[in-house]
Amino acid sequence: MVMGKLYGVGVGPGDPELMTVKAWRLISTSDVVAYLCANGKDSTARDIALPFLPEAVAEIAIDMPMRVEREPAQKAYDQGAEEIAAQLTRGKNVIMLCEGDPFFYGSFMYIFERLAGTFETIVVPGVTSVTAAAAAIGQPLVSRDEALKVLPATMDEAHLRAELVNCTSAAIIKVGRHFGKVKAILNELKLKATAIENATHDNQIIRELNSIEGDTLPYFTTIIVRAK
Amino acid sequence: MVMGKLYGVGVGPGDPELMTVKAWRLISTSDVVAYLCANGKDSTARDIALPFLPEAVAEIAIDMPMRVEREPAQKAYDQGAEEIAAQLTRGKNVIMLCEGDPFFYGSFMYIFERLAGTFETIVVPGVTSVTAAAAAIGQPLVSRDEALKVLPATMDEAHLRAELVNCTSAAIIKVGRHFGKVKAILNELKLKATAIENATHDNQIIRELNSIEGDTLPYFTTIIVRAK
Repeated sequence: MVMGKLYGVGVGPGDPELMTVKAWRLISTSDVVAYLCANGKDSTARDIALPFLPEAVAEIAIDMPMRVEREPAQKAYDQGAEEIAAQLTRGKNVIMLCEGDPFFYGSFMYIFERLAGTFETIVVPGVTSVTAAAAAIGQPLVSRDEALKVLPATMDEAHLRAELVNCTSAAIIKVGRHFGKVKAILNELKLKATAIENATHDNQIIRELNSIEGDTLPYFTTIIVRAK
Repeated sequence: MVMGKLYGVGVGPGDPELMTVKAWRLISTSDVVAYLCANGKDSTARDIALPFLPEAVAEIAIDMPMRVEREPAQKAYDQGAEEIAAQLTRGKNVIMLCEGDPFFYGSFMYIFERLAGTFETIVVPGVTSVTAAAAAIGQPLVSRDEALKVLPATMDEAHLRAELVNCTSAAIIKVGRHFGKVKAILNELKLKATAIENATHDNQIIRELNSIEGDTLPYFTTIIVRAK
């Protein structure tokens, strides 16, 4: 029997219309989809793809334990990869739904590293939250011979400060509970910035950095820094 | 009369299926499109959108002089913006076709800065050549708490070297005639890299850095550096 193919498909930043035509085609004709979820049900990637999911599609929900330790997550990836492999071995293609782009800070890499050596694997790139956030605020992200730095807020403070000190354009992602640290560094360096929560989702919020109280923002927040 | 809206629409990296559903919808129902071109005809953005262009669409081709000096280009943008403004004033929407993403090193910013203060302007983000190149070579671009640097090869040599010395993940874009400089720096720093010419286009070529002779590659080349 011919083995199925594994597709890592970027569904874009939030608005379902911001997935690619290729993602739409693959999802709307899929037999089996897979995605990460929390609490056995919440999946941003599935929510984005929902308008295009066939009624009869089989779903592999990979439940990720919400803990900091690495081991429970690795077990969840192991189990998810096994379920996906079983479908591929039966000859079914599996479409793994990934927020944004699969290879841009995507959890798809954990499935990819487990299965790509055995099964044909195709990655379909997607629009990231970074360019979606710049579009949402109507501000060019980067141009000409400027460097762009994408910096996870989870980086340690000294490293994050060092990258921001001499940057031209930067986007800070994965903000969540690291917002306090990020705000302090940006204020110290006198850098202006805009925070975009849930870019292109129905609950998108845009605020200037200095107008935001508190030390926490949603995980899906992008902070666009204009340093020039 | 109601004025038209200006749309800056990312058409993605090359494969027409990698434009978003929103870009496809706007292009396939457009009355007027605009794009940059060279020699009065060559336009990568138009080539990508071609399968979806309506037969009766009006086209504003903004012919860019192929010179290093700034002034002729500024005049071409002035004239292009005037032609677009004339259509918007007549109540027509204008879809400006942009390779990749309009605000990610896009020439759209030159039209945006001339017209966005006067006309309602909407930016539709697109897939960039950077994540498309990573997908093409089947290699995760960046993950966890790593920083990603996007570096134009047009940057001066010292600055480019300084950014590459302590990077985790980097993508070098706009390679063209700067390839010799880039190759020398990467070799000096003992960094492995893959060059992807024309990612996702029909003429895509993938080569390891060390297998490439000569000092020039196409402008639409992305070099993915894995520094870890």
